[in-house]
Amino acid sequence: MTDLVYVLIEPQLPENVGAVARAMANFGLGELRLVNPDFSILDEKAVALAAGADHILQQAQIFDRFEDAVADLNWIYGTCATYRHMIKRYVPVRLAMEEIKNADVCRAGVLFGPERTGLSNDILARCQAIIQIPVAADFSSLNLAQAVVIASYEWMQAQINAEERFEMGETMHASQGQVSAFLADLEKRLDDVSFWRIEHKKPLMWQNVQNIFARMTLTAQDVRTLWGIMRSLFDHKDVPPK
Amino acid sequence: MTDLVYVLIEPQLPENVGAVARAMANFGLGELRLVNPDFSILDEKAVALAAGADHILQQAQIFDRFEDAVADLNWIYGTCATYRHMIKRYVPVRLAMEEIKNADVCRAGVLFGPERTGLSNDILARCQAIIQIPVAADFSSLNLAQAVVIASYEWMQAQINAEERFEMGETMHASQGQVSAFLADLEKRLDDVSFWRIEHKKPLMWQNVQNIFARMTLTAQDVRTLWGIMRSLFDHKDVPPK
Repeated sequence: MTDLVYVLIEPQLPENVGAVARAMANFGLGELRLVNPDFSILDEKAVALAAGADHILQQAQIFDRFEDAVADLNWIYGTCATYRHMIKRYVPVRLAMEEIKNADVCRAGVLFGPERTGLSNDILARCQAIIQIPVAADFSSLNLAQAVVIASYEWMQAQINAEERFEMGETMHASQGQVSAFLADLEKRLDDVSFWRIEHKKPLMWQNVQNIFARMTLTAQDVRTLWGIMRSLFDHKDVPPK
Repeated sequence: MTDLVYVLIEPQLPENVGAVARAMANFGLGELRLVNPDFSILDEKAVALAAGADHILQQAQIFDRFEDAVADLNWIYGTCATYRHMIKRYVPVRLAMEEIKNADVCRAGVLFGPERTGLSNDILARCQAIIQIPVAADFSSLNLAQAVVIASYEWMQAQINAEERFEMGETMHASQGQVSAFLADLEKRLDDVSFWRIEHKKPLMWQNVQNIFARMTLTAQDVRTLWGIMRSLFDHKDVPPK
């Protein structure tokens, strides 16, 4: 299990640090370090933007020197929007987070530079690799907190395997028997009103109609509801079938 | 090619809409719609947070009714932080963006609700599926703009195949001949100072030393630099070898 630590080098805007804390809490991260911030860590703008993640600000460590802020970390990654012509691996953030997670390194750090300039080349030279977030070439300036949001999201993605879920609430899927009974009633009603007009077209048209209902992934309640709608429209009754 | 449109339902904070515009520009998106915003689209806070993505605000369309805002869209997806006990597919944002991209549907919309309440159940009922962003269970409140950042990032990820790159700048990888010459010189120097102490341990120790240099992925210039360092330290010369 890797501990992931964020190190903000000389951050300039307390709003950004607050938003960073919130994003860290959103994605299960907690350890924040700042090197020479331009403001107090509990600046009111930072606290406002943290939106309840004050504990991350309160526990944040402040350092004067970059070297001290990373001394106990095993791997450190820089972040950089552009290629700096430095001999180095440039790794998209998704792959970087998978790499850190899979390496099972004890303590890893991701460094973010000052808003205006990004990380210095001196600091980038100390990093194992450089993390990049793919962005549009014509509008590539990503806000510091937004970069942290994406890195943190990818960190959580690397831990979990998020899968699609079909939410059923309190209901149950319809049985095919229920669906068949409904469809048989529908077909009979359509026959009765000569819906198909040209008889030899019925097989394909009916297949299409059945397909519409199959795609709906009907619950038992849905079948009762649809049947109720059909009965009240056609029979002018308002009581759905038992 | 699918056009992806964002529809913000009754957004409350102009800062968020500005940050949304910036994030859209960062990830190559452009089409923004608002239903009944609480402020003017060119509110100064919105423009400030857009950080240059003013064109997205200027071209944004404003609607009074949800139905009009989505009338020309083929597929619409809601966004929702929690399960609402609505019979519906809940799809993690990564899979949802891949699904929209792969379906090659003409025009798809992603709807975001008001900051305080999220989308109403009436609107969610109209959506094909609900997009969810996996977050920490104990701190799941994601800022509107941050949710848009992640959705937009995943939209761009679905279009590209971001790969690691080894940046070489103006340099070239070292040839194995250069590496061998350097290592042979190093080995001879270590032999000369009896670095290995116990002779039968040398093979494994030397293997480890060679491995260190192999992991470095050396450039031709790196080999010259290391050789220069070694020569100046051991020989007290400051001229690297030709």
